[in-house]
Amino acid sequence: MSVLVVGTTALDSIKTPYSENPRLLGGSASHAAVASAFFAPTRLVGVVGGDFPSKHLNLLRKHRIDLTGLERVKGGQTFHWSGEYEVNMNNRRTLETVLGVIEHWQPVLPGELETTPFVLLANISPQIQHRVLDQLKKPRFVVADTMDLWMNIALDDLLRLLKRVDCLVLNDGEARQLAKEDNVVAALPKLHHLGPRYVIVKKGEHGSLLSGPEGLFVAPAYPLKKVIDPTGAGDSFVGGLMGYLASQKKGTINQNLRRAMIHGAVVASFCCEGFGLSRTTKVARPEISARVRELEKLVRF
Amino acid sequence: MSVLVVGTTALDSIKTPYSENPRLLGGSASHAAVASAFFAPTRLVGVVGGDFPSKHLNLLRKHRIDLTGLERVKGGQTFHWSGEYEVNMNNRRTLETVLGVIEHWQPVLPGELETTPFVLLANISPQIQHRVLDQLKKPRFVVADTMDLWMNIALDDLLRLLKRVDCLVLNDGEARQLAKEDNVVAALPKLHHLGPRYVIVKKGEHGSLLSGPEGLFVAPAYPLKKVIDPTGAGDSFVGGLMGYLASQKKGTINQNLRRAMIHGAVVASFCCEGFGLSRTTKVARPEISARVRELEKLVRF
Repeated sequence: MSVLVVGTTALDSIKTPYSENPRLLGGSASHAAVASAFFAPTRLVGVVGGDFPSKHLNLLRKHRIDLTGLERVKGGQTFHWSGEYEVNMNNRRTLETVLGVIEHWQPVLPGELETTPFVLLANISPQIQHRVLDQLKKPRFVVADTMDLWMNIALDDLLRLLKRVDCLVLNDGEARQLAKEDNVVAALPKLHHLGPRYVIVKKGEHGSLLSGPEGLFVAPAYPLKKVIDPTGAGDSFVGGLMGYLASQKKGTINQNLRRAMIHGAVVASFCCEGFGLSRTTKVARPEISARVRELEKLVRF
Repeated sequence: MSVLVVGTTALDSIKTPYSENPRLLGGSASHAAVASAFFAPTRLVGVVGGDFPSKHLNLLRKHRIDLTGLERVKGGQTFHWSGEYEVNMNNRRTLETVLGVIEHWQPVLPGELETTPFVLLANISPQIQHRVLDQLKKPRFVVADTMDLWMNIALDDLLRLLKRVDCLVLNDGEARQLAKEDNVVAALPKLHHLGPRYVIVKKGEHGSLLSGPEGLFVAPAYPLKKVIDPTGAGDSFVGGLMGYLASQKKGTINQNLRRAMIHGAVVASFCCEGFGLSRTTKVARPEISARVRELEKLVRF
């Protein structure tokens, strides 16, 4: 089955202690769609300006991503994020954000996209997430990713969104903030109370945590000796997760979600091994399976 | 088989944002020995002053811990640590340390302890760890726990010790410091290079990591909704690990180490649920098995 991904399609300028990389292909939808496309047909809904390089479009097409839902605004400026990482690669700060064409974007879904069964509302404003959700016809499984920014400036919209989705994905700091609870495990029931049946907490190098009707699942991260650029790792995680779920012909979502998280974790590990999408877009499917098998061995006792 | 534990036997005064608890039974050897004694006969080597309450001695005896190796210095003052935790329970600061009788302690092992096969050099100065090791006759498996303090003030002794032990246990920050390497996964081969065949990195609520001849093992922490006091959790982890290893009649140490870490993690989880040893000393063996089974389910995919 297919996956629809809505989110940002951006140009990212990323500084680390070791190098500078201007105007890379980035954004939550780009990372998530490439990750999803390893497993299932994937449709991207987003917006770019006239400055968006055609090589980026070609790269997405090469990954068989359906770009029918990607709006191009001639003369407009593509969303541009510029940020800097500290030595330990965990702390980052935003240097500049230019919203460009994303600021007044009102997504309109082409008719053939309205019936996509698996829907990933990747990180973007809750208003846009709502608007896409409004146009969908009976989606089978809706996952929303979010970030602290929306908790700070669009909390009401976000809370309304949580009543409309099956699964919420966020990082541990955001889980604490949204639940107003210092202990992540104690935050989970409070997050369920806001609406979603499934809650997934991303903990970076420490893996992730799923809370659902069958209790908790603790998923490892793939242990990396070297992290080049973690930008987009969370988007790759949730994109890979959705693609894997959509690709499964057997079993319920509940039954497949644990393995889906493992596949997401593996795509995220590749994402961290290069700037932007440079490593992810060179991964071959058997490399993913090999790391999944490694993770199986890593946690067995 | 038996476990010998050497380390501090202390009085701990612990402040958290919620309460103050003066002069609790604490110290690395107390926590580790109680944890080990759930699984195997355990012998404690330590020193206390005349001020050490007899109720603490009785509690250790009640847990069937052999105190032949516990020296009592009449008129001396027991090692006293006083510290304070922040709201998130991860950051702590030491308010005061009184070394007391531990400062000039030269442990002498009673003859019957010299042949103990499983030896835990719990956190204490590397000089004392060496001195105990010098008196042991062909131990089967030696584990050393340590902390940043010894890296700062006794690095040469610590480095010499690492050539004499089978397994090093330390937390993630300490692993980075000792290996001079920011990435924990990349730090592991550097730590092996210092001597130990096995390296275990404790990551608190994020679980632990084993590196050994068969590669990596990622062990989960038991997810706790409420942490009352994490003091001694690391000591409980390694104590439980050693007790479990010593209790196994089948399999090699290499084969049993993963399950040993899981048992250690479970004892550590109980430790966090009360001040000092108050919760750990009330745990019944079946409660440990129940949490081990929960952890098995938590990581299965």
